[in-house]
Amino acid sequence: MSTAMPVCRFPLTELKDLPDDIRETILAVQEKAGFVPNVFITLARRPAEFRAFFAYHDALMLKEGGHLSKADREMIVTATSAKNACLYCVVAHGALLRIYAKQPLLADQVAVNHRKADITPRQRAMLDFAIKVCLDSAAVTEADYEELRGHGFDDEDIWDITSITAFFGMSNRIANAFSMRPNDEFYLMGRLPKAPKSAN
Amino acid sequence: MSTAMPVCRFPLTELKDLPDDIRETILAVQEKAGFVPNVFITLARRPAEFRAFFAYHDALMLKEGGHLSKADREMIVTATSAKNACLYCVVAHGALLRIYAKQPLLADQVAVNHRKADITPRQRAMLDFAIKVCLDSAAVTEADYEELRGHGFDDEDIWDITSITAFFGMSNRIANAFSMRPNDEFYLMGRLPKAPKSAN
Amino acid sequence: MSTAMPVCRFPLTELKDLPDDIRETILAVQEKAGFVPNVFITLARRPAEFRAFFAYHDALMLKEGGHLSKADREMIVTATSAKNACLYCVVAHGALLRIYAKQPLLADQVAVNHRKADITPRQRAMLDFAIKVCLDSAAVTEADYEELRGHGFDDEDIWDITSITAFFGMSNRIANAFSMRPNDEFYLMGRLPKAPKSAN
Amino acid sequence: MSTAMPVCRFPLTELKDLPDDIRETILAVQEKAGFVPNVFITLARRPAEFRAFFAYHDALMLKEGGHLSKADREMIVTATSAKNACLYCVVAHGALLRIYAKQPLLADQVAVNHRKADITPRQRAMLDFAIKVCLDSAAVTEADYEELRGHGFDDEDIWDITSITAFFGMSNRIANAFSMRPNDEFYLMGRLPKAPKSAN
Amino acid sequence: MSTAMPVCRFPLTELKDLPDDIRETILAVQEKAGFVPNVFITLARRPAEFRAFFAYHDALMLKEGGHLSKADREMIVTATSAKNACLYCVVAHGALLRIYAKQPLLADQVAVNHRKADITPRQRAMLDFAIKVCLDSAAVTEADYEELRGHGFDDEDIWDITSITAFFGMSNRIANAFSMRPNDEFYLMGRLPKAPKSAN
Amino acid sequence: MSTAMPVCRFPLTELKDLPDDIRETILAVQEKAGFVPNVFITLARRPAEFRAFFAYHDALMLKEGGHLSKADREMIVTATSAKNACLYCVVAHGALLRIYAKQPLLADQVAVNHRKADITPRQRAMLDFAIKVCLDSAAVTEADYEELRGHGFDDEDIWDITSITAFFGMSNRIANAFSMRPNDEFYLMGRLPKAPKSAN
Repeated sequence: MSTAMPVCRFPLTELKDLPDDIRETILAVQEKAGFVPNVFITLARRPAEFRAFFAYHDALMLKEGGHLSKADREMIVTATSAKNACLYCVVAHGALLRIYAKQPLLADQVAVNHRKADITPRQRAMLDFAIKVCLDSAAVTEADYEELRGHGFDDEDIWDITSITAFFGMSNRIANAFSMRPNDEFYLMGRLPKAPKSAN
Repeated sequence: MSTAMPVCRFPLTELKDLPDDIRETILAVQEKAGFVPNVFITLARRPAEFRAFFAYHDALMLKEGGHLSKADREMIVTATSAKNACLYCVVAHGALLRIYAKQPLLADQVAVNHRKADITPRQRAMLDFAIKVCLDSAAVTEADYEELRGHGFDDEDIWDITSITAFFGMSNRIANAFSMRPNDEFYLMGRLPKAPKSAN
Repeated sequence: MSTAMPVCRFPLTELKDLPDDIRETILAVQEKAGFVPNVFITLARRPAEFRAFFAYHDALMLKEGGHLSKADREMIVTATSAKNACLYCVVAHGALLRIYAKQPLLADQVAVNHRKADITPRQRAMLDFAIKVCLDSAAVTEADYEELRGHGFDDEDIWDITSITAFFGMSNRIANAFSMRPNDEFYLMGRLPKAPKSAN
Repeated sequence: MSTAMPVCRFPLTELKDLPDDIRETILAVQEKAGFVPNVFITLARRPAEFRAFFAYHDALMLKEGGHLSKADREMIVTATSAKNACLYCVVAHGALLRIYAKQPLLADQVAVNHRKADITPRQRAMLDFAIKVCLDSAAVTEADYEELRGHGFDDEDIWDITSITAFFGMSNRIANAFSMRPNDEFYLMGRLPKAPKSAN
Repeated sequence: MSTAMPVCRFPLTELKDLPDDIRETILAVQEKAGFVPNVFITLARRPAEFRAFFAYHDALMLKEGGHLSKADREMIVTATSAKNACLYCVVAHGALLRIYAKQPLLADQVAVNHRKADITPRQRAMLDFAIKVCLDSAAVTEADYEELRGHGFDDEDIWDITSITAFFGMSNRIANAFSMRPNDEFYLMGRLPKAPKSAN
Repeated sequence: MSTAMPVCRFPLTELKDLPDDIRETILAVQEKAGFVPNVFITLARRPAEFRAFFAYHDALMLKEGGHLSKADREMIVTATSAKNACLYCVVAHGALLRIYAKQPLLADQVAVNHRKADITPRQRAMLDFAIKVCLDSAAVTEADYEELRGHGFDDEDIWDITSITAFFGMSNRIANAFSMRPNDEFYLMGRLPKAPKSAN
């Protein structure tokens, strides 16, 4: 939080002035990731919104069960955030996609044109649906559900794909309108082969 | 919940099988409104998502302070939900808009074309901004903030306008993809002059 | 015509100064409807245009025979006028749709998203075609005619659907550019169960 | 009417079977123009619509007074019909534009990109407004009227520009959906210098 | 080059000041066509770009072999240039299309709406593909190649259709941004029956 | 050229079967870059097109003089290629942009939303213009030239911005329709601090 670059266009609350639970969440993230993603710092200005945002995020992204892998979920976020031209989410979730999928090229491919990405037909169908929810949700019909079922997704999976797309559509609009800046750390994450443990 | 019409395209959880806090929330809404809006019934299938969704909703829509009236907030929801062609939110929040604004024609005007609605220049600017966040958030710049400040909004108000638009953009996508049906009760709410108390 | 609200952005001709046939038409409408829809008052400024407009309107909307009910016709007008964001026609013809269809929720459904409306597959196909004529008529091909024939429409019906859509596309542009205001009376028409005759 | 090429996708009524007034109108047009434009032949199938269509057409296009020349009117039709990709109207009214403006290159310029046409700033403003009415009438505001007034148009002229655009927007949709074919004669009209009278 | 009308918005280089090879190319074109198309005069300001542009042009448009006739190639240029609203290319290549196809009406048809043009199903498929490459190349998939193969095109033909569309998409953007004016001579070319040889 | 992954959807010509000049160009690139970018291998199938393409490319990208730096040029390519959703050009030219600008984050920023990129107002204006040429060249007017002149660009610079945008618009369409794959090497180029010379 000591970087000279603006995190977003709003003044930020000092860590010490935050409610305890939020400060603890932020410190835990810093401990785990080595830095605090700017979305935490930005939303901390509004504690009630912070708590609801991350509760919803975790319910969707950390949910157990179902047929969506962590890489699938981040791929949905990356592809739809690119449609919304959200720099923060493309960069931050592209990093997570590279890490979970262990494919260093995948995030850039999915962000520019998912039709040219190194993905399976099942993932292609998943992204086609997510992009329709992102760009023209009013046109979604049962035929779209049928198409996904043909690739092995069940209705609970489709609930997940929809909700992840919708949640990050919200996040994209907030990040864009607040000029939320992705942390520099995200850009390179997952692009390099992991060094052997002793070298860390 | 005993209506023959489908609330949404997913099977619903019986009230008795819901976690206590969610059942209580639903019963309280029914007590107050006389019916349970279908968004409660739909999301109750996923308790964690239900709790986060309504916590976020309340943080934005019930927030104290700032320069947005309840009618302003519902007007933002109605106008942007119409852009996303979300039947549920246009009908449900249009009802609330009529009630809070005490203007029975306003919701239909705002949903079809806010430029022809009986609103103030300040509200027109607020809706212009909200619609930009809704349809092209990547193009929002400081000039848009300046424009709103010229109408008496401060930066915290703009945070609110943005977040309400973004939150209901999420809600619109979920309602559309899940075919969430607005309760019949909403359509007529706020259209008739309130009867004198004794007649209730 | 004595309302304080502007009917449209042009100065209006006094009833007494109108040509006899137009004054008589207007008085007959007032007699029948209980008020004069603003489109009559606006166009009366230009008698030749008034006569041609309503002659065309009646040829399409009062035409005998064919397989389009009055409710079908008003449904086409409501759905396509919403695509053109024409407040006057959505409100005025939505009212007629509610009355002819005897479905108080239908107009709002069709105006926001016809895919979620309580209509038959035949009506869905009719509206899909009308919306294509409204938004991208250059792309209409024989395949679109075939699709409609599969729902029991013949070529004369398709002529009607096309012409109604096209005529109200004209009306929408005029109403929008002239800021033609829908009469307040329209908003509530057809929303309430009809009172028993003695109560009128 | 004896050409082997289809005039439109509907069967046509024989001249002898038409109502007298319509047959006479058609014969008069043939006498004057040397051929019968296909719009007359197509609409003659529906006499009431024929009469209303041409009454409206004449009220707008043959109107006396105001500040729109015949070339201005045809220029509006050509430019907006191109936006609707209506082959019939671009070809037929492009021919009339060439003739009235005595500029053989003008119609092609206006149809492809009015910004590159050999027209005056006043005509450029007129077409900018007409194209806005054609493509996004809901966004027209008083500022658009102000802009036109700055070029010497009064409100009655703006009524005319709007109504011509709206009327041909209707005509474009009908011609497109009916596959109405422009007569071959139109393509070359007005492209060649007029031969001296004795040579006719 | 002595015309009073601006060829484009840049100052032009005198013929005598051009490199020999470019001057010779221009004189050869003038000899053959009777005039110098303005694209030669405009690009001559930048000799290296001139040489590359026409080398590419000739490689695509004068290529021997394959299943695209000269008329097919010019039809692709005319249809896609119209989508880019490029006056220069619609007028200049429309002229060539009329000449090669010996169909004086064809260019206007293709420029306004290729679906209504007097072309074969094979040409319709070719233009559908070209327009997709022009407007949404990222969405091209193997299914589009399959569709074309069903009309007798092989992969080398599809390479040609793509490259011609892409090259003239470049040319359209240059002509538009430089306000390159089509020579007056193009407008009438190919519209009249060829006079008997002795009459030339 | 020995990679197992498809370079593009066309069969490729063996290096030994290429014309001498093209083989030498390719070997020189390999010598310099350490690998052969796939655009060379793809276009080599068509020697005349290869020569013209790279002659044009070099005329625009290696041009001496003017006020566009190498980073400016690659920034134009990256931003406009993203608008065309061209994976090849975003990845390949994003790499060059990082290297020339010595800003490892810049390419991702420009590709997702140039309004949020770490660039100067002059570069922002340059990209605004380039994106207009890319997406709506028909709407470019003298006012756009004026805007750029206010940032210190002269007309020759605007020629360059236009031509680079137009040339890569061609390249984007070819790469998309041919499924041209960016070499894996590009993705990481310019993202890491350059190692000290001895370490190379």
